[in-house]
Amino acid sequence: MIKPEKKFVTEYSVTGRLRIASILDGEDGGVSYIGKKVTVGGWARTVRKQCSDTLLFISLNDGSTSSNLQCVVEKTVKGFEEGLKATAGCSFKITGTIVKSPAQGQSVELLLNTGDDELKICGLCDASKYPLAKKHHSKEFLREVAHLRPRSQFFSSVMRIRNSLAIAIHEYFQKNGFMYIHTPIITAADCEGAGEMFQVTTVLPPESKNNISNIPASKIEGSQDMAVDYKKDFFGKASYLTVSGQLALENFACSMSDVYTFGPTFRAENSHTTRHLAEFWMIEPEMAFADLSDNMKLGEGLLKYTVEYVLINNMPDLLYLDKNIENGLVERLKVICKEEFARISYTEAIEMLKPHDKEFTVPVSWGMDLGSEHEKYITDVLEKRPCIIYNYPKDIKSFYMKLNEDGNTVAAMDILVPKIGEVIGGSQREDDIEKLENAIKSRNMDPAPYWWYNELRKYGSVPHSGFGLGFERLIMMVTGVENVRDVIPFPRYPNHCEF
Amino acid sequence: MIKPEKKFVTEYSVTGRLRIASILDGEDGGVSYIGKKVTVGGWARTVRKQCSDTLLFISLNDGSTSSNLQCVVEKTVKGFEEGLKATAGCSFKITGTIVKSPAQGQSVELLLNTGDDELKICGLCDASKYPLAKKHHSKEFLREVAHLRPRSQFFSSVMRIRNSLAIAIHEYFQKNGFMYIHTPIITAADCEGAGEMFQVTTVLPPESKNNISNIPASKIEGSQDMAVDYKKDFFGKASYLTVSGQLALENFACSMSDVYTFGPTFRAENSHTTRHLAEFWMIEPEMAFADLSDNMKLGEGLLKYTVEYVLINNMPDLLYLDKNIENGLVERLKVICKEEFARISYTEAIEMLKPHDKEFTVPVSWGMDLGSEHEKYITDVLEKRPCIIYNYPKDIKSFYMKLNEDGNTVAAMDILVPKIGEVIGGSQREDDIEKLENAIKSRNMDPAPYWWYNELRKYGSVPHSGFGLGFERLIMMVTGVENVRDVIPFPRYPNHCEF
Repeated sequence: MIKPEKKFVTEYSVTGRLRIASILDGEDGGVSYIGKKVTVGGWARTVRKQCSDTLLFISLNDGSTSSNLQCVVEKTVKGFEEGLKATAGCSFKITGTIVKSPAQGQSVELLLNTGDDELKICGLCDASKYPLAKKHHSKEFLREVAHLRPRSQFFSSVMRIRNSLAIAIHEYFQKNGFMYIHTPIITAADCEGAGEMFQVTTVLPPESKNNISNIPASKIEGSQDMAVDYKKDFFGKASYLTVSGQLALENFACSMSDVYTFGPTFRAENSHTTRHLAEFWMIEPEMAFADLSDNMKLGEGLLKYTVEYVLINNMPDLLYLDKNIENGLVERLKVICKEEFARISYTEAIEMLKPHDKEFTVPVSWGMDLGSEHEKYITDVLEKRPCIIYNYPKDIKSFYMKLNEDGNTVAAMDILVPKIGEVIGGSQREDDIEKLENAIKSRNMDPAPYWWYNELRKYGSVPHSGFGLGFERLIMMVTGVENVRDVIPFPRYPNHCEF
Repeated sequence: MIKPEKKFVTEYSVTGRLRIASILDGEDGGVSYIGKKVTVGGWARTVRKQCSDTLLFISLNDGSTSSNLQCVVEKTVKGFEEGLKATAGCSFKITGTIVKSPAQGQSVELLLNTGDDELKICGLCDASKYPLAKKHHSKEFLREVAHLRPRSQFFSSVMRIRNSLAIAIHEYFQKNGFMYIHTPIITAADCEGAGEMFQVTTVLPPESKNNISNIPASKIEGSQDMAVDYKKDFFGKASYLTVSGQLALENFACSMSDVYTFGPTFRAENSHTTRHLAEFWMIEPEMAFADLSDNMKLGEGLLKYTVEYVLINNMPDLLYLDKNIENGLVERLKVICKEEFARISYTEAIEMLKPHDKEFTVPVSWGMDLGSEHEKYITDVLEKRPCIIYNYPKDIKSFYMKLNEDGNTVAAMDILVPKIGEVIGGSQREDDIEKLENAIKSRNMDPAPYWWYNELRKYGSVPHSGFGLGFERLIMMVTGVENVRDVIPFPRYPNHCEF
């Protein structure tokens, strides 16, 4: 079993500036730096003067950690007078000596008291206009100022965890010998049923040259009346933003064995929930010579590796989130790492749920799609650990999933996590050309666009399996954040495409 | 200075199948596996029978390495009879014992000669139809069968190097304390001047419901006549595919200090060259408290780290490419790692080139954009090493670049590599709000969409710098491949959006 390691950057950066994380997030809280002269840079979270204006206290954050470095500036130091003008939000470059801190809650602080030391204001900040001048802000407000949002402790913690998760994902696959493949973003194919697609085009007039008000109403076309000659479009046909890299990725699994993609994915759904975005990132591995059971192992291993990576590398951020966002977060994450995931067939799940039918809005019956109330009951009430549900009825699943020998179910699986719900959905793929063609036909799909996909089953077909993991869903699981708009730099959803 | 390490996967994968790279790419060529029973899977590059049909030789590739594992199957072994039907392109799962090879050019081979051993055909392959049945294929032909292209030795080598470069890039930034930020793909902003944009929309009718032939010609709108009410579009305004993540990334640099993005980028240019794609991947770092000189260090360090990573981890693929694609490739790459990059101001470059004016189609003069003939002359003839040209005339560069004290040049830089040309372009960003507003005004740009970008200069502005590196350009540099369509899984360019 591969394990994540502790990552810790101690070297000076390219710029000669030392990151605050390198000092404060070390195991000794910075004690090994005591007596050392260092240069740091960052933005003031708070600036306080001592009454007599002989001392300046700057709480400095540079985004490398949730902790602030307390900087104590004596009156004699170069830049002190200018520093008196500073307020929260100002940027500084500061040279001083790390000393033992007399204050509680921090081991060290930065003292400026000699001729070598310097307080340099890089940029002032008008406190009367600065949107983050106050200490606390709602998540809704922070979304409005998304360009400054990463200066907040909440959002920067989430972004550091996001960074860790992205790297942990690459590590997990690379250590297991998978190749990272960039499947295409613009596509003329359609991973059937995955969702509504955005169109990509060059036939429309740009907004600036499209002065609606100057054009007679009769000339303003709505989508109902419009007809477009797509032969004249950029790609010579209608093209779309991808909803899944899976089909393209299977080409690589059937040649390079073990591959994965990690890229942006799109849904043009008019959805205003706290769980859906029009643009999000997705991880999709695909393994050759692998059945559904291998697929479960891969998925369970990935979730455990990434969660453990964050437990090892982001504890200060997790503690902040545990305190402010979800009480018990750290314990919940440890359960994911520790417990073996339950493996329950769909048919068993239905049997397990039936005795509790009175608990549900929709009673269960074989053949139905499980609702989140049913999934939650399994993970949160019955099993109290992550669960893998597998072998679903074929009629509620996609054409490319492998038909089981019973003729009624397909080798599909979902991984469900307590409190969160589904985070992974995958399947073994149909590798029998006849069965695949039948599945396409019985769904009244046009087989023509799938010629290359089908050919994989003609030229050295192999059993292969894979799954999809929504990256933002994973971040929500690891941070306890409940609104997907708060785990991505600039969220896109209906009528929102700012910044 | 951080250094890349040797990566090597020796563990069995999730599936219990051992990758061929684990055996053959070890330092001892697989000798340590001699006597071990292993299970491998893959596709036959060739299948040969001994005249008397008592021995079968299968040259097996699983995409983990450019080398094939020679499998020798004796007549007594389970699956031998079925194996006689096999041809190139068939897929196998094979269990046997690694033995010392009597053949030249390989240390070990896989022998199947006992009752435990098994030859299992996963999928047959009709040799009369299989597009890759022959041994050698042109790059043009391989593009036509892009779904099978990664089975070719050429393309799989390029894809393994692509994987290594992507991971090396993440490693370099992470080891230097940078955070990976996913800047948005769909945007209503425009990184001015970067290029033509694709529009993203939901107002157009899908191709399937848009039967042009049934609609009177007068109703078929071309882009000239069409008017669209973008308030009804998905985002309530015209939206586009990003041409650069830079502006969004600056928000994060001005809060989390050192950040980078690595994602897909788009240009709707009707360009049919061997160097341009409509969809490509780009790496963009952004550093706070950093000037142009720091930016050069970061760029030089990144190129050296990534090239060295591939020299350490992909030598079998590099040797294949050195022999078949660019003679001298490995030596050229070593020069990039070894030589200090020259630093030449634009003004110096003009002076250097003037005496050689008769060599150029376009004579040089201060203020012009350097053509590739000029850049090539500097790197290939005058300096014979990578060169960084910096401080360009402001009039040929973008609004966001920092104006130098001379008032005529901006703190921009390009990194040029011998035989390849420009691979990196970057700048220090204008952090003075007045100068930035002047630059926007003097270019007759509408300042309104940049309100948030400008605000970064009002609330704790910091000197910051960054650059862009086209990922495919980097792969071309490292592989010697001359057509960008051959370094990306599924290339997108005018009229081409297949697979």
